[in-house]
Amino acid sequence: MTSYTEELRLGGAIRARRRRLGMTLVEVAASAGLSHPFLSQLERGLARPSMRSLTAIAATLGTTAQALMADTELPAAPDTEPVSVVRRASDLVAPVDSPGGYVRPLVRGERAMLPVEFNGAPREFDEYYRHDGEEFVYVVQGLIEVDIEGGFHTASAGDGVYYPGGLRHRWRSLSDEDVRLVVVQQNRPPATDSHGEPPN
Amino acid sequence: MTSYTEELRLGGAIRARRRRLGMTLVEVAASAGLSHPFLSQLERGLARPSMRSLTAIAATLGTTAQALMADTELPAAPDTEPVSVVRRASDLVAPVDSPGGYVRPLVRGERAMLPVEFNGAPREFDEYYRHDGEEFVYVVQGLIEVDIEGGFHTASAGDGVYYPGGLRHRWRSLSDEDVRLVVVQQNRPPATDSHGEPPN
Repeated sequence: MTSYTEELRLGGAIRARRRRLGMTLVEVAASAGLSHPFLSQLERGLARPSMRSLTAIAATLGTTAQALMADTELPAAPDTEPVSVVRRASDLVAPVDSPGGYVRPLVRGERAMLPVEFNGAPREFDEYYRHDGEEFVYVVQGLIEVDIEGGFHTASAGDGVYYPGGLRHRWRSLSDEDVRLVVVQQNRPPATDSHGEPPN
Repeated sequence: MTSYTEELRLGGAIRARRRRLGMTLVEVAASAGLSHPFLSQLERGLARPSMRSLTAIAATLGTTAQALMADTELPAAPDTEPVSVVRRASDLVAPVDSPGGYVRPLVRGERAMLPVEFNGAPREFDEYYRHDGEEFVYVVQGLIEVDIEGGFHTASAGDGVYYPGGLRHRWRSLSDEDVRLVVVQQNRPPATDSHGEPPN
């Protein structure tokens, strides 16, 4: 039940944003490279997206995976609920699968920064990420190698890596220990649509 | 030598910003509630400020302690050095004393977010902090109690607390274990001068 609730919430955030933009399931699925039935299942809380799928959906909807996970479509009513507390054991947020583990949002509601916790990392590099806004990675435990536009940096517990999200980036685990990262992305609404094709 | 270098860098950041604003040592010291000789020592790297002193200086200079620690006055030349890597063992950043421990910057240069690592926390509440921009606290280890405008929240390893910096906030340790926190503040240049008195 708990898991269903989490996934329903995330699906609801996707659907609310899609509808607000006046897009159909078919349009969003096609643009994100997913099947229409799978997207429909996601929206109804019947399937769980990977970080990669969620990132593709978010780009199509002009937002980020982190923002969808933070439930920004269900406004936290900043006047009445300015403080967000997310506990490790909470069932109010939806973890999302990512290569080598899962991602857990660390805030709820519409915020200027979008912190998440990555648990686990792949042993081999996966595809690059690229997004609006700046990004900060703090290594809580483990040893990782970060690839930023082909520049390689190792980082271990207590190290911080900061870069513009527009630089292609990805990381992999170099340790046998479980990797845990805190990743904070600046929530910068794209002023120009950098994801879609230019209108013509 | 290393320590002297760190303090010289921080002092240089304070002096550069003060001069850019056309303020005198006496003016800044008076506004920050510090002695003029002490501020002069800080600027020359001959003394080490507390987080509280640095916060008062920063407010007077229209910036934040985190920004001064991140060395934003020595521009990181974003075009050539967009990536910042700060290691736990680095001697390139200046730790600053804070109640119960010290604060370590996690980024260098002018950035949209200002992450620092708090090591240690007082057992009793100290004075409130209040600042522009939003703030996120992640508990790496230990157990803390966060007081946000008189609302109390406990947080332990893996928990995230998020609030507008304009709400008065402070925290204290509830654990025997050493407390370690990652605190990320939004670097929002004050649109209006909320720190000083209104001109008149």
